[in-house]
Amino acid sequence: MHTSPAIERLVSSLKRLPGIGEKSATRLAFFLLGAPEGLVSELSQAVARIKQDTVLCERCFNLTDQSPCPICRDPRRDPSVVCVVEEPADLVSVEKSGGFQGHYHVLGGALAPIDGVGPDELRIGELEARVREGGVTEVILATNPNAEGDATAHYIAECLRDTEARLTRIAYGMPLGGDLEYADHVTVGRSLANRQELE
Amino acid sequence: MHTSPAIERLVSSLKRLPGIGEKSATRLAFFLLGAPEGLVSELSQAVARIKQDTVLCERCFNLTDQSPCPICRDPRRDPSVVCVVEEPADLVSVEKSGGFQGHYHVLGGALAPIDGVGPDELRIGELEARVREGGVTEVILATNPNAEGDATAHYIAECLRDTEARLTRIAYGMPLGGDLEYADHVTVGRSLANRQELE
Repeated sequence: MHTSPAIERLVSSLKRLPGIGEKSATRLAFFLLGAPEGLVSELSQAVARIKQDTVLCERCFNLTDQSPCPICRDPRRDPSVVCVVEEPADLVSVEKSGGFQGHYHVLGGALAPIDGVGPDELRIGELEARVREGGVTEVILATNPNAEGDATAHYIAECLRDTEARLTRIAYGMPLGGDLEYADHVTVGRSLANRQELE
Repeated sequence: MHTSPAIERLVSSLKRLPGIGEKSATRLAFFLLGAPEGLVSELSQAVARIKQDTVLCERCFNLTDQSPCPICRDPRRDPSVVCVVEEPADLVSVEKSGGFQGHYHVLGGALAPIDGVGPDELRIGELEARVREGGVTEVILATNPNAEGDATAHYIAECLRDTEARLTRIAYGMPLGGDLEYADHVTVGRSLANRQELE
């Protein structure tokens, strides 16, 4: 359809990214055609090097440029509180909230028996070893608030039940800026059940 | 925020693309991290080569790998009908409609005096020369259906008034799958005014 194979090639590459269809890909390709050379070569190199410049942290399994990762190495952070998340992107979300100063443990997903993801496919054994090693006083289970995330949190809680660590789960409730009228009833129910005193 | 400079770099590059914010950029970066090497290197190269592998067609100013472009070179296409569009992306849209077998002329934008885009910034002189050269029987003004596109179409029509070419403008009306209830009244009005006999 395009009269230039270079555009055709770029559009077909961009279309393979999640959430980018034919129209967005075409728009991005034409944007890049008109963009400054610096921006284009920067993007190309950033894409090319993403895989070789990234490793997993040996301790928390977060993505990093060198292991252990900057969070595990940071002396100002508290290693006795471990926040368990499914994916590195979830860790980024928690970091952005600015409310957490402990360490992390990235599971690499959530339990999903139908898709063949059992406990052995996740880094649950590594988490257990880390907690049993001692020094961890609290494990915050911050897997996603859905069926898989809940099942994973409960499974981990069972594994760690006999350790000294306190086991907590992130709170359910209404999202900020949400609207009761449009919220699903489970969320509204949890939000009511978890109601707190106004101070 | 990210613990890997490589991810940081990719996210910040991706964020400079139109329609891609922090969240989408992060999602795309993590997708690329987990994607097969082939897909990643293909995308990187397609981005890197987009500018040097693309030139403007000397005749219609479409983007192409060699000038004149495949459309201008195609003997099955009719050079006597010229469809005038604002941008190469518009040409792609017309091509996809499958309803046009003539040639094109890409203006490089629309008249926008406030943004400093006058007739000299567009390829209107080149279009006039092309029509005055002879052999063009119809000029279809397919600039966008908005104020700038209309002004550009009228300006070009004035310039070509004294030539032999028939001057036409693409039709206004309801988009396919549209809903009268939600359509703006100008579109509904035009759609009524342009009503056609049912056969």
